[in-house]
Amino acid sequence: MQLHLMSWPEVANYLSQRQDILIPIGSTEQHGPMGLIGTDAICPEAIANAAAAELGCIVGPTINVGMAQHHLAFPGTIALRPSTLIAYLQDYVNSLALAGFTHFYFFNGHGGNIPSVEAAFSEIYAERSYQRQGPSGQVRCKLGNWFRLPEVAALASQLYGDKEGNHATPSEIALTQFVYPHAIKQAELAPIHATARYATDSRDFRALFPDGRMGADSALASPQAGEQFLRLGVQGLIREYNAFVHHP
Amino acid sequence: MQLHLMSWPEVANYLSQRQDILIPIGSTEQHGPMGLIGTDAICPEAIANAAAAELGCIVGPTINVGMAQHHLAFPGTIALRPSTLIAYLQDYVNSLALAGFTHFYFFNGHGGNIPSVEAAFSEIYAERSYQRQGPSGQVRCKLGNWFRLPEVAALASQLYGDKEGNHATPSEIALTQFVYPHAIKQAELAPIHATARYATDSRDFRALFPDGRMGADSALASPQAGEQFLRLGVQGLIREYNAFVHHP
Amino acid sequence: MQLHLMSWPEVANYLSQRQDILIPIGSTEQHGPMGLIGTDAICPEAIANAAAAELGCIVGPTINVGMAQHHLAFPGTIALRPSTLIAYLQDYVNSLALAGFTHFYFFNGHGGNIPSVEAAFSEIYAERSYQRQGPSGQVRCKLGNWFRLPEVAALASQLYGDKEGNHATPSEIALTQFVYPHAIKQAELAPIHATARYATDSRDFRALFPDGRMGADSALASPQAGEQFLRLGVQGLIREYNAFVHHP
Amino acid sequence: MQLHLMSWPEVANYLSQRQDILIPIGSTEQHGPMGLIGTDAICPEAIANAAAAELGCIVGPTINVGMAQHHLAFPGTIALRPSTLIAYLQDYVNSLALAGFTHFYFFNGHGGNIPSVEAAFSEIYAERSYQRQGPSGQVRCKLGNWFRLPEVAALASQLYGDKEGNHATPSEIALTQFVYPHAIKQAELAPIHATARYATDSRDFRALFPDGRMGADSALASPQAGEQFLRLGVQGLIREYNAFVHHP
Amino acid sequence: MQLHLMSWPEVANYLSQRQDILIPIGSTEQHGPMGLIGTDAICPEAIANAAAAELGCIVGPTINVGMAQHHLAFPGTIALRPSTLIAYLQDYVNSLALAGFTHFYFFNGHGGNIPSVEAAFSEIYAERSYQRQGPSGQVRCKLGNWFRLPEVAALASQLYGDKEGNHATPSEIALTQFVYPHAIKQAELAPIHATARYATDSRDFRALFPDGRMGADSALASPQAGEQFLRLGVQGLIREYNAFVHHP
Amino acid sequence: MQLHLMSWPEVANYLSQRQDILIPIGSTEQHGPMGLIGTDAICPEAIANAAAAELGCIVGPTINVGMAQHHLAFPGTIALRPSTLIAYLQDYVNSLALAGFTHFYFFNGHGGNIPSVEAAFSEIYAERSYQRQGPSGQVRCKLGNWFRLPEVAALASQLYGDKEGNHATPSEIALTQFVYPHAIKQAELAPIHATARYATDSRDFRALFPDGRMGADSALASPQAGEQFLRLGVQGLIREYNAFVHHP
Repeated sequence: MQLHLMSWPEVANYLSQRQDILIPIGSTEQHGPMGLIGTDAICPEAIANAAAAELGCIVGPTINVGMAQHHLAFPGTIALRPSTLIAYLQDYVNSLALAGFTHFYFFNGHGGNIPSVEAAFSEIYAERSYQRQGPSGQVRCKLGNWFRLPEVAALASQLYGDKEGNHATPSEIALTQFVYPHAIKQAELAPIHATARYATDSRDFRALFPDGRMGADSALASPQAGEQFLRLGVQGLIREYNAFVHHP
Repeated sequence: MQLHLMSWPEVANYLSQRQDILIPIGSTEQHGPMGLIGTDAICPEAIANAAAAELGCIVGPTINVGMAQHHLAFPGTIALRPSTLIAYLQDYVNSLALAGFTHFYFFNGHGGNIPSVEAAFSEIYAERSYQRQGPSGQVRCKLGNWFRLPEVAALASQLYGDKEGNHATPSEIALTQFVYPHAIKQAELAPIHATARYATDSRDFRALFPDGRMGADSALASPQAGEQFLRLGVQGLIREYNAFVHHP
Repeated sequence: MQLHLMSWPEVANYLSQRQDILIPIGSTEQHGPMGLIGTDAICPEAIANAAAAELGCIVGPTINVGMAQHHLAFPGTIALRPSTLIAYLQDYVNSLALAGFTHFYFFNGHGGNIPSVEAAFSEIYAERSYQRQGPSGQVRCKLGNWFRLPEVAALASQLYGDKEGNHATPSEIALTQFVYPHAIKQAELAPIHATARYATDSRDFRALFPDGRMGADSALASPQAGEQFLRLGVQGLIREYNAFVHHP
Repeated sequence: MQLHLMSWPEVANYLSQRQDILIPIGSTEQHGPMGLIGTDAICPEAIANAAAAELGCIVGPTINVGMAQHHLAFPGTIALRPSTLIAYLQDYVNSLALAGFTHFYFFNGHGGNIPSVEAAFSEIYAERSYQRQGPSGQVRCKLGNWFRLPEVAALASQLYGDKEGNHATPSEIALTQFVYPHAIKQAELAPIHATARYATDSRDFRALFPDGRMGADSALASPQAGEQFLRLGVQGLIREYNAFVHHP
Repeated sequence: MQLHLMSWPEVANYLSQRQDILIPIGSTEQHGPMGLIGTDAICPEAIANAAAAELGCIVGPTINVGMAQHHLAFPGTIALRPSTLIAYLQDYVNSLALAGFTHFYFFNGHGGNIPSVEAAFSEIYAERSYQRQGPSGQVRCKLGNWFRLPEVAALASQLYGDKEGNHATPSEIALTQFVYPHAIKQAELAPIHATARYATDSRDFRALFPDGRMGADSALASPQAGEQFLRLGVQGLIREYNAFVHHP
Repeated sequence: MQLHLMSWPEVANYLSQRQDILIPIGSTEQHGPMGLIGTDAICPEAIANAAAAELGCIVGPTINVGMAQHHLAFPGTIALRPSTLIAYLQDYVNSLALAGFTHFYFFNGHGGNIPSVEAAFSEIYAERSYQRQGPSGQVRCKLGNWFRLPEVAALASQLYGDKEGNHATPSEIALTQFVYPHAIKQAELAPIHATARYATDSRDFRALFPDGRMGADSALASPQAGEQFLRLGVQGLIREYNAFVHHP
């Protein structure tokens, strides 16, 4: 049940019974020569929408731009500063909290979002801790990452081993291939570029990872594997989401 | 051509030929008892994607949350403060400008966004006027509103006259009905509520407009009319976009 | 009755009877070779002070610097970023709202202010919509533009036709000539420079409009016409202000 | 020479010869039962305009709202947060610095502005120290206070002794009486309220100083004394301004 | 070599040979009935100062207040909002980067700091990615946590097993006992309070963890164990720091 | 009694009896060829800790980085922008005020902090004046400067006359020599550099004061004098602190 496809009386009715919401969050950033720029939004959105059918929960509008400053040297990347993303998430959560939502599960497709999103949660809680807004303990936020769900990670490891890498991974590309079969790209890929160092700013990143991939053999991706990742992602999300919402 | 479905080398290739981008911008807000909460994002997104096929341009990720503070008293609404939206648009535009994009056409579905988006343009230009970033005159932003395209407004007027109203209008609802036929809502609608006064904050809005509609007879909407609105919207957008991009 | 010339007990007495205030807002920016840099502040201030005599309302201190980033390539211009102007207006309105003022009519002399001022209104309302401050619906802000009052626009059209232009217009210069006859400037004016494109940042503006005028034949201005504009401006402002304040 | 009454070519001509500017800064705040709310802006503005005739310098638009949070419990007060005033002054100075102004003399009428204005200077310099903007050492800001000019303070001491007090002082009220003779107020004044403690927030201030005066016998003011204060203020400002501008 | 005990020529000399700096970062927050409020600053500071003797590196001033909003319901806690901590770290790093420092190793004592510090790194890099400041790739920041050093965690596990808990742990208290033997506290401790849920705001935290400890049996701490933790912390920090600084 | 060496129940117990706190605030900045970079933090911290023994008050964690932008051209300096320092102090004070602290005495070692700290106080009060947080008049902040205590200034004048200067003064260096005898530096000092002009940004400062001292003959410092300064500082602080806390 996408929030965008509901009317407000339907939301009011939902809130009279439950107060949780599932929010896909991704990024708009390069994913190597054959990965889609929207990969990190497409993956959690697809899984969330499929899982919501069973969960019966509302899915909020996908946060499709995230913290991607390190990818800015590749065209097509859009990056929010952490401070912007924090302000954005504050408004997003505070708006829904006003209406009575209490449990916010952000389902994430981009590792680079994690610190900023967690910092945003603290900023949101801090407002309440300083007693500036609302009653205590009623807003609970959680971040889950689809690619770290145990069943997902296990399949990635089984299929790709250490060729999974860290960015433009075959697992995420496979999932997008299944969701958007007409957007599958072909590209000559250079041998996997190994580096022991993390990157800092965007030009540093590009110098370290010239085609944008971080140790990932994107070419191993297939739509068939993507379907498996979707199924396992749904399974994992349902379990994690229920654990979050039904926890005392 | 959605940016999210492209790879970065495809974007690089595009930029070697042209530097424009089309960006749908909407809102997540109540649209009366039978309008979809995502109406303002759905409409410009649908038109933009259809027009892009002919325009050959890239469509950026839809900005699906906007400045909707006045709707916050209805559940389901998510509102960015103007200051947040300005920061968000700065990062969105500056990211793409780094890569070489120069012409940013924002295609809008929500009247409430207009001042904040225009203010954001000025904030973006001001950075450059203060010489803090980049060369001069190379970033050009424009805001167009689908519901103010002459052909769209003419059809709305012809079909609905003054029952079109200002929010949860039959024209916008019609368009969403065509795009999402399975999400058509039924609702008992109170007689149109007339008011001469504009609203201020969200509780003031709800007191003035108890079911969320502003003088609009949403029930007049039909998917058939929606198809017409889509076709006219595409026609109008193509003309306006070309005028913007090809202007000397 | 200028707020600056009152004592606080006089304000307290006023507030026991009415809660409205009239606030001139302008800009400090180039107005072509013969226009005054303070034109956009001088015009609404002069009209507001004259109208207030009849309206019996308080006139707040003129906001004499506005959003003028596009004029920064001409010396003498002072520009607030939109974000700064928004913060400024928040504090201005919140201060007076604390004391009991409820109706804020901003009377504007500069088109470039409009989006930022409207965005500021939303930022002010949003504070209340998020329930962070004060009761609902008690702060009402409105922006009126002296140059768009029907009687003013009609006279400008009658006197100058399309030589009125959009910046450094003969109508605004005429009004300043009437108010400050000793500051009337003489200058050789180049032929009117026509352009179909809007400007972006300040260097782009100057490239498009080398002497600062936008299609305006400033030389047509006269103090006699200025007196007429003042009279019509007062007439229009009184009508608009009363409509705002006395609206249910 | 008020900036508002100049054209941009006149400013350009001035800048080809000198790069200094005099900027009155005041406040909009209660000044006791018989003081004007605009006192702190009126005083430095009147002195600055008179001095400028001899100095030949440009006078920028008066900053008529300042940091007055402690007066907010009295109606008519408008207060900028320090952070807002800092942002405002950044934009004010950066705008003029772009055009070539280098020496900014702020002539102040309100003690409460001092820390925020000095902090703003540091914020402006810090931008340059971090190398984010412009060449080094070219922007020089100075704050002078009219009421601390030695000749002004001496006259206040001679005329009023310790009845001068600290707010709504007879000296500042005298000056406004001379400038605005038609706005002279009469009021019954309670005996001077002595307090050894400084105030914190606005309600604390009002509890300590119930009618808004801080140890000042405002009733001693006279327009005649105001004329003397104006003359001495002009004399002192000219000396201080020249020392600032002509210093190596 | 503490930065605070050096002169600037000594720093200049150091920078001519190496460009790294070690920065302890902690928090000021409750640590249960017998833990010190400064625990999270004391631990990394003590280890850093001891390690620096061997590393030969400069130790920057300890960041002794951090992101601790969840502890605000206990007296003595001081918490920075994430946005404040981010701004603070930006200025800290940018200042030293101006002078030529390139490698910033933050040695952390508080888990709650991690997201905000990592977000701050991205904010710092983003400035450079947007090309707003300085050359690329020259500023490298890394966060290490003393309590996650393998040798430290191993000892904690060996000594305390699952009584180590997550806050006010015996290991951190032991270290402070060794460093400040005169500040060892005695307190009656309630049985360890188990909870499966994470906390949100400060009142929620206190409801979940009434005496401030999170599953930790603080009473197991001893100064003798503290000495071991210090020794192992130094050993681990030296290894990690060298790996960071000497990495290609 | 350092806050960092207390447990939260000890703080709770303290608050049941008194609500004041003493907070050393300094800077991290060059102090000439033989002064310590931490001088401005070391001095107030040492005096505060010694005075607290007699005062029985809590000493908060030292704020060891301040507003030092003008020193940024010398390596080792760390500077917060005024806006950052204001946000930092807001959080610092608001955190402790939540717990019940009411009297905040900041004991300062750096003249450059004064405007920003005073502005921060106003920002903190303004929050309350706008009624956004907490009851009125309960938070009282005061800034005292150790180097302006009458007995301290008298000794400096007696020992050093006009060779005391304004930065890297023999008095402050003497105090650090007494506190850190092993960190006493030797350096060839150029003759005292006299300048009548104040500095603006950091490069301007270095051009005016090439070795970082401002008219100070640092070489006159001795640990023996430092001991005297410490004793007099403690004496002065006790008097001033008591006057602040016990004032009605």
